Amino acid sequence: MARPTLTEFERIARFFAPLAAPGALGLVDDVALIDGPPGEQYVLKTDAIVEGVDFLPGTPPGQVAQKLLRVNLSDLAAKGAVPLGYLLVTALPRSLGEDWLAGFAAGLAKDQATYGIGLLGGDMTAIDGPITLTVAAIGRVSAGSAVLRSGARPGDRVYVSGTLGDAALGLAALQGKLALADAVAREFLIDRYALPQPRLDIGQRLVGLAHAMIDVSDGLVADLGHLCDASGVAATVEAEKLPLSAAAAAAVRLDPAAMAAVLGGGDDYELLFTAPHGSEAALALLARQAGVRITMIGAIAPGAGVEVTDRDGKPMRVEVAGYRHF
Amino acid sequence: MARPTLTEFERIARFFAPLAAPGALGLVDDVALIDGPPGEQYVLKTDAIVEGVDFLPGTPPGQVAQKLLRVNLSDLAAKGAVPLGYLLVTALPRSLGEDWLAGFAAGLAKDQATYGIGLLGGDMTAIDGPITLTVAAIGRVSAGSAVLRSGARPGDRVYVSGTLGDAALGLAALQGKLALADAVAREFLIDRYALPQPRLDIGQRLVGLAHAMIDVSDGLVADLGHLCDASGVAATVEAEKLPLSAAAAAAVRLDPAAMAAVLGGGDDYELLFTAPHGSEAALALLARQAGVRITMIGAIAPGAGVEVTDRDGKPMRVEVAGYRHF
Repeated sequence: MARPTLTEFERIARFFAPLAAPGALGLVDDVALIDGPPGEQYVLKTDAIVEGVDFLPGTPPGQVAQKLLRVNLSDLAAKGAVPLGYLLVTALPRSLGEDWLAGFAAGLAKDQATYGIGLLGGDMTAIDGPITLTVAAIGRVSAGSAVLRSGARPGDRVYVSGTLGDAALGLAALQGKLALADAVAREFLIDRYALPQPRLDIGQRLVGLAHAMIDVSDGLVADLGHLCDASGVAATVEAEKLPLSAAAAAAVRLDPAAMAAVLGGGDDYELLFTAPHGSEAALALLARQAGVRITMIGAIAPGAGVEVTDRDGKPMRVEVAGYRHF
Repeated sequence: MARPTLTEFERIARFFAPLAAPGALGLVDDVALIDGPPGEQYVLKTDAIVEGVDFLPGTPPGQVAQKLLRVNLSDLAAKGAVPLGYLLVTALPRSLGEDWLAGFAAGLAKDQATYGIGLLGGDMTAIDGPITLTVAAIGRVSAGSAVLRSGARPGDRVYVSGTLGDAALGLAALQGKLALADAVAREFLIDRYALPQPRLDIGQRLVGLAHAMIDVSDGLVADLGHLCDASGVAATVEAEKLPLSAAAAAAVRLDPAAMAAVLGGGDDYELLFTAPHGSEAALALLARQAGVRITMIGAIAPGAGVEVTDRDGKPMRVEVAGYRHF
């Protein structure tokens, strides 16, 4: 058969969007909503991680478990949902022993306690291939309150939680592609790659305040593009305003090309959202309460697409457009 | 690390059962129940299929899609649930082109129409390994009406829908291990392996009538064992009473060892259930309405374990105890 030529998003649009159920939000929101008990809706989300694609071979099993849960919880966070539980499918090479499984289960237990969730069911299978793990996570929101990707309006400001680019730089450090003299900075970046922090608290606090929200998993520009596509709007982002950790800032000083990780690198699992002009005070309070910075990085306008401008207001060319699976 | 020594069920009991959420039924029922809209509960189920384990390399993609959905729908059938929709994760080798994906999506579309379900969301990833597909299916039942594995009581009779052993014999035929002169019989058995028929209609009609239910995916003796374990009872099955298709009966006449496929072969996806003595007339009516045979094959008693007796009432030794993934 021919080599594939479509991106993941084109494949979804062509082959899977026609199959979408009511509640699937046309498959553009990465989650589905179904009716729950009175006044509530359930938010459903599924995501898989594969050894060699989403985590490096040899990663400790507990860390793999935590990453698996957290990439799913991050999507619930981006809807403002409270997580309830998850279904788990493990496809494991026969060479993995019970030590691995014990470590994996310990990682799940740790994060179950952290996030107040439980295991709802699952399936185990053997695979003659890489470790492949799938979670379907379920959370709940007050009926009608889920923050969708599609709610951004011209005039909204664009915000992001935390800092950007850390995870991509951490992966580069792990792969020996980024030399950082500072061991603390290196550890920080690697940890940001290995162990995402789903912003559940902030996400829940943003219900009623944010117009549209997504988590940064494919990269800032790609994910803002998804949000703009779903909302039918354009966005401009000022590169100067992007929040960098001290470690990422050091990496960019060392090599300005590292800025590509900030604009295009995935796996940060921060919340990217829009809120109407005038929300600044409420968001500043929220950031203080949550103990996580929230930074205004741009604005929404009529049109389509994402434009990043440099310090002189000139459009920058952004090479990386999200992780391309195919 | 050491070679694994635990079975799949021992692994679940040791590592995952301690992680079970309320609603997960202690992970012994293969599904979870969560509250739905007033008067309803949702039934959640996840199952994966892997190329080379659950389907043969080269299987047409539409057929793979249908098997994927149907193994999950079969679990919903065994709870008496009405299916609503599903989440889908595809982990596909990069060598698979869009032709494969188009065929796969067509298979999904066909079964969505057959079963009245829709795609709720999903994830696509690349894998350097076999095609690995995961579905999380969701259905609904009237609150409190789901038929669990744990409800069997001494004195219940044991019933099964359809016929047993066909799928295992079909796989053997595909693998060249079973020579059947009759081409029609061969096709029938292969079709039973390739395309399970989830017994949703029968399952829903059994609500309020069956005490306990499971689908036959690991094999009759293994699955009846799961039901007995969950219920804290024992079961006896009379081998003479097991319902065989004409094709399977021909295979057994050819080689009596084929009886192992009837007792131990998986993948039939028939419903195995218990109902109180005196249900015979109601079940006969139900079988006529559903157009599928229902056969009484044994009884539930106090104790533990499954005993199969031959025509002389003597215990038979059953070698196969369900598919062992590890």
